[in-house]
Amino acid sequence: MKTKAVFYHAGCPVCVEAEQQLAACLDPSRYTVEHVHLGNAKDRVREAEAAGVKSVPALVLNGKAFHINHGADLSALKA
Amino acid sequence: MKTKAVFYHAGCPVCVEAEQQLAACLDPSRYTVEHVHLGNAKDRVREAEAAGVKSVPALVLNGKAFHINHGADLSALKA
Repeated sequence: MKTKAVFYHAGCPVCVEAEQQLAACLDPSRYTVEHVHLGNAKDRVREAEAAGVKSVPALVLNGKAFHINHGADLSALKA
Repeated sequence: MKTKAVFYHAGCPVCVEAEQQLAACLDPSRYTVEHVHLGNAKDRVREAEAAGVKSVPALVLNGKAFHINHGADLSALKA
């Protein structure tokens, strides 16, 4: 069974490009990647927070949050 | 031909655990991952810097530096 990785971002073009590149490098036989735009899906900010996400872009993989570079703090997306 | 990804770290156990987990998720049919401990291999700090690495842990993939979470600034490793 494949593991779902979730990639949270806020639409910054540079970050999206960079992270999609990273997400695309994951082993497709083991992982499916869901992309969540927290600027559009504000109802999922809480879920991201619960997973340990402090800033975007971030990848949640096997229950761990990996903050990749730094776009914006999660708090900026709660407004 | 496989692409070489380079994962730079400074030996912090938490970061090493987290990043090895991320590195292990890369598609093994496309990537080989080299792990470089910059605390031990100070001669490679310049190489990391040239690749755009500002802090460790970081993964350099397809010529781009991905800073994953934050352990230490690269400048701390030049001492």
